[in-house]
Amino acid sequence: MPRHAYVNGRYVPHGEAQVHIEDRGYQFADGVYEVVPVFAGRLIDEEPHLDRLAYSLGELRIAWPMSRAALKLVLRELIRRNSLANGIVYLQVTRGVAPRDHRFPEHSRPALVITTRRARPISPAHLANGVPVVTLPDIRWRRCDIKSVSLLPNVLAKQQAVEAGAYESWLIDAEGCVTEGSSTNAWIVTKDGRLVTRDRSAAILSGITRQALLDLVEVEQLIVEERRFTLAEAKAAAEAFLTSSSSFVLPVTRIDGAPVGDGKPGRLTLKLRDTYISHMNHAAAAL
Amino acid sequence: MPRHAYVNGRYVPHGEAQVHIEDRGYQFADGVYEVVPVFAGRLIDEEPHLDRLAYSLGELRIAWPMSRAALKLVLRELIRRNSLANGIVYLQVTRGVAPRDHRFPEHSRPALVITTRRARPISPAHLANGVPVVTLPDIRWRRCDIKSVSLLPNVLAKQQAVEAGAYESWLIDAEGCVTEGSSTNAWIVTKDGRLVTRDRSAAILSGITRQALLDLVEVEQLIVEERRFTLAEAKAAAEAFLTSSSSFVLPVTRIDGAPVGDGKPGRLTLKLRDTYISHMNHAAAAL
Repeated sequence: MPRHAYVNGRYVPHGEAQVHIEDRGYQFADGVYEVVPVFAGRLIDEEPHLDRLAYSLGELRIAWPMSRAALKLVLRELIRRNSLANGIVYLQVTRGVAPRDHRFPEHSRPALVITTRRARPISPAHLANGVPVVTLPDIRWRRCDIKSVSLLPNVLAKQQAVEAGAYESWLIDAEGCVTEGSSTNAWIVTKDGRLVTRDRSAAILSGITRQALLDLVEVEQLIVEERRFTLAEAKAAAEAFLTSSSSFVLPVTRIDGAPVGDGKPGRLTLKLRDTYISHMNHAAAAL
Repeated sequence: MPRHAYVNGRYVPHGEAQVHIEDRGYQFADGVYEVVPVFAGRLIDEEPHLDRLAYSLGELRIAWPMSRAALKLVLRELIRRNSLANGIVYLQVTRGVAPRDHRFPEHSRPALVITTRRARPISPAHLANGVPVVTLPDIRWRRCDIKSVSLLPNVLAKQQAVEAGAYESWLIDAEGCVTEGSSTNAWIVTKDGRLVTRDRSAAILSGITRQALLDLVEVEQLIVEERRFTLAEAKAAAEAFLTSSSSFVLPVTRIDGAPVGDGKPGRLTLKLRDTYISHMNHAAAAL
């Protein structure tokens, strides 16, 4: 059975899934997206993902392509058709098709595209050794809180990481502080055991895994600081890690070639990874 | 005869012109474009447009989808099929279709989409009265020299202009200087008759109309300064105007509601518009 995609009202074989060339997503990056983890066939943290979708759409004044309830049904139907157990659902909403003109069209129907993908297993070496990151100036626009498809700077930052032999780029703002990775949030653990991640603002995307982890550690009574932290502070940290919907919690053991702490995945980092995976297990079982 | 588009090797009716949902232009804004004016059936300033395309592709390390010579033939064939006399050719090149992953795919063939559009006549009122602009902070990324489809900030800036009753937004950098418009370059004429436009850098797109006009005024021995200018200087200018491939040279007579000079289209501005249109006429006749 071929994998299917959902495109503007129809389930179509993935290879035949197309949009019009004047879809504003293609010509203007005028759209937003979400990546929702699927674990044991269940959508994890679906509500916060849809809340964030609502936020992104609202900031761009793009209408919902269908009701939230209907969207939830379509997500489930696509998971079912594609027999997806573990992986992600990708959904993209754009302002739709209109003759090319920068301004918002007077009449256009939002476009909705949904795909699924099986989980790409995290490399055992990445878990055992942690991953290296490199740092780059953050040259993105100033509305990174909107999860838009205007991702070219993120693409370039990820590619630079790959070519430097790293897993991810951490982006550094004009004040020398880490904002986030090209597709992940950045965290450190200070030598006195405080968990630090950048505070929410237009400078970062409010990651759902980031927020889920913040909620989980609150229960565990760890000291958490949501604030700016400099690259120097990150390099001097005891531990570092990154979070995302597809890598969960991943230890970062090198920054620009220099080891973080003892250069091995941190104890707290690995504990938080377990905590997060337990959360997913519980969430899936509860659905 | 329906209008045709060129999509990845085929001429197709515009309404059926589609690309795959995993074209990286759609998911990552990982592509570039050009808008080439067509006047009397001829491509105007085609070589500088293709040079800039080469620059944009080179900066993103996207391969040419076909040779430059072949592309020139396709542009002409599409103009012929669509019987286009006056208007524009839009061409877009993306990194092509690949499973979604930020990093550059190892194997993907660049995608090429070309459309034409008849000229939208400039409103006589715009020419007679000039157009108003509003100013906004420039929140775009720091590689505006690449003509990428990552245009969401430009879309939002244009929409803000429209809603403020203006024709265009002029974007103001952190130092209080005008960079450019959301889809046009910005110019002023000082009270002592100097022509000023922002110098080329990663902060602006190097407009082809901008450059053509610079070449033309060099012949006329006007004093031209390519440099930063503040919003205050723009508001105190004798004249102001904007340039683009579709509006040519258009007088700007209000900035944030305040009149520029006497609030009427400037004498030099209108002369430069005539100069540019003569250039197009000569260029078309020479081809």
